[in-house]
Amino acid sequence: MRSQLEMDWNKCFALRTALMRRSAVRELLKVTARPEIISFAGGLPAAELFPVERIKKALTAVLDRAGGQALQYSATEGLADLRAWLARQFSNSRLQVRSENVLITTGGQQALDLIGRILLEEGDRVILENPTYLGLLAAWRPAGVKFLPVACDANGLRVEDCELLLKQKPRAIYCVPNFQNPQGTTLSLARRKRLVSLVRKHSIAVIEDNPYGELRYSGRALPNLLELDARNQGAGGFDSRVIYTGTFSKVLMPGLRVGWVIASRAVIEKLTQAKQAADLHTSTLSQYLALELVGQGFLEEFLPVLLENYRERRDAMLAALGKYFPKTAIWTQPEGGMFLLVTLPKHVNTGALLPAALKRGVAYVPGEAFHLNGEGKNTLRLNCSNARPDQIEAGITTLGSLLNEICT
Amino acid sequence: MRSQLEMDWNKCFALRTALMRRSAVRELLKVTARPEIISFAGGLPAAELFPVERIKKALTAVLDRAGGQALQYSATEGLADLRAWLARQFSNSRLQVRSENVLITTGGQQALDLIGRILLEEGDRVILENPTYLGLLAAWRPAGVKFLPVACDANGLRVEDCELLLKQKPRAIYCVPNFQNPQGTTLSLARRKRLVSLVRKHSIAVIEDNPYGELRYSGRALPNLLELDARNQGAGGFDSRVIYTGTFSKVLMPGLRVGWVIASRAVIEKLTQAKQAADLHTSTLSQYLALELVGQGFLEEFLPVLLENYRERRDAMLAALGKYFPKTAIWTQPEGGMFLLVTLPKHVNTGALLPAALKRGVAYVPGEAFHLNGEGKNTLRLNCSNARPDQIEAGITTLGSLLNEICT
Repeated sequence: MRSQLEMDWNKCFALRTALMRRSAVRELLKVTARPEIISFAGGLPAAELFPVERIKKALTAVLDRAGGQALQYSATEGLADLRAWLARQFSNSRLQVRSENVLITTGGQQALDLIGRILLEEGDRVILENPTYLGLLAAWRPAGVKFLPVACDANGLRVEDCELLLKQKPRAIYCVPNFQNPQGTTLSLARRKRLVSLVRKHSIAVIEDNPYGELRYSGRALPNLLELDARNQGAGGFDSRVIYTGTFSKVLMPGLRVGWVIASRAVIEKLTQAKQAADLHTSTLSQYLALELVGQGFLEEFLPVLLENYRERRDAMLAALGKYFPKTAIWTQPEGGMFLLVTLPKHVNTGALLPAALKRGVAYVPGEAFHLNGEGKNTLRLNCSNARPDQIEAGITTLGSLLNEICT
Repeated sequence: MRSQLEMDWNKCFALRTALMRRSAVRELLKVTARPEIISFAGGLPAAELFPVERIKKALTAVLDRAGGQALQYSATEGLADLRAWLARQFSNSRLQVRSENVLITTGGQQALDLIGRILLEEGDRVILENPTYLGLLAAWRPAGVKFLPVACDANGLRVEDCELLLKQKPRAIYCVPNFQNPQGTTLSLARRKRLVSLVRKHSIAVIEDNPYGELRYSGRALPNLLELDARNQGAGGFDSRVIYTGTFSKVLMPGLRVGWVIASRAVIEKLTQAKQAADLHTSTLSQYLALELVGQGFLEEFLPVLLENYRERRDAMLAALGKYFPKTAIWTQPEGGMFLLVTLPKHVNTGALLPAALKRGVAYVPGEAFHLNGEGKNTLRLNCSNARPDQIEAGITTLGSLLNEICT
């Protein structure tokens, strides 16, 4: 029996906390941070590519110009100049984005969390790709949402399968159209158009999560769902069923925690209220640094460097997989982004296999965590942006020999 | 009638969003940012005191030492060295804090939001000071919490009045013991002890929110509720009913958005799960900068500067109030922090009066927003840390003459 002085915290937590769990991936990352491990586990950018001297200069420039204001409280919506930059960046002949359509968030993860808070109630149904982004499940699961998983193929979400689920009156569709996590697949143009026409007919909100879109190594860029759906409204910006989320994490640096939402003004207004309660505003210094860098045209220089390096790594991984993985394995062919998904014969359990892989010095993420309905036990996610090409060759060799032992 | 192409977003938002609102204070801050206004409205530190050159050097030192890691993803719990520093800082002869008892949050506001997420369900009752911190109401109201307001006097929360409310089985007590926002009052030692003994008897969680504790200008520091309640558990840290929240916003710079929770390990564990879903982690760069500064002993130099300046400003405000405010007005006497609360005769409506004050170039926050049960219409909150002493004298003179016109 506990004495009066002790507190049984487990009795104090809200019921929904039973739906919270630590991310398997982030727990795994702690193990794989050891330098002797070749890690295909995380979704980490290559930190050695960050131009540290340039960033030092940019920080000095920020403090010279903005002084103490760069360290002071700032507006919940985000820095005005950063919102205006994003509005210009996302505007084109089809889409007129105003600053009022932009909210700065504490990374893309907060964007997803806030969207869940304003849109979803207990019991609401949400259509999503199966497998899907783990952080989305973590953010929305505690709200008591019922997920309606839809299978994917080489062209992404099977939109035709969504139609059947519409009878269940879903509140929203969550979709990562470009280089999806964990599959690396891209939603085809035909499916994008069909998805937009579908949600128009049924008045369903679409969350278009696009952290990787800029990281395209081959093939042609496709229009965003937001562009395909939005109707311009002149000075009022646009109206759309699509709520678009983006981030500097993959094209600048994730440690800044600067992401954004682009959406109809009514949505931005409500999200701003939710954000005010969540963390008042995103780091002022991080926002100033991001603004300084993009204002200097840094992305135009840095993105080609990223693309060159990441393309080489993706190609190294695809080549190594072809050489060293068992013939019974198949994998996706990403045109960009950071991940691909390997599917092994049914009897292979990639979760059970992980300790053996770690013992040989290679890490991956077992695919089950990304799947709904207990699927994906025979899949694994590989990151192809963090390790160098020589490490990729070595790591895939090791992993391939382990898999060959059990797949034949 | 809306065409098929348009979306009525108001029909899409979750029911609880009706409980969200923009903070009156933060909306007001946008107006009062105009340089011609003397603002007593915000809770802003004095940005002109931030040592910009020193911060530039610290940022350079961070990037020299940590390189790209200072801009990379980092652990949800926060930087290990920063957690260890806080653990040492909060440990004393009565309290043994370990890193496992510390979670870094995106400012103190996120700490409150996360605590609400893990503790509170719809219909739960929470005892709090009336008036109280607006950001707490914003964070917890959408969860459908029922607030049980308790009146305060010059010694803070009337703990004896809490006892009657215990029949309603509250889930938690929220309290700002030091220099409370908006009143500036401090909970007496006797009441602290009584509160701790009360919550022990009834097994209620206490959220001790202490953003201002270091900013004491007069009187003696009192032990935290956490210290009074915690039982040390050796290597496991401590166990306590108290969940303590703190922040660098008032003693370093708010634009970093670095705050923390200190609590029992079970609480930190659950909060970490909630934080992972909320924003993955707090800005890595902000954390490194804070760590660099405190590691250099910056607080030992900077805090005395802050205290000297803020003390002078508080004294200037108290002196000016005595000289220029109507005899029918009363106000609190803060020993520290950033605020005091003025109470005017019942017939004065400080909300209705604000436009006239702004027209004369002075801003304050009408007190009603901080109060529950529609009280406080005749009160106003004054910040005494942001304006210089000469501005304080001028602003209070102006405000006093306006009030004298209507209070006599």
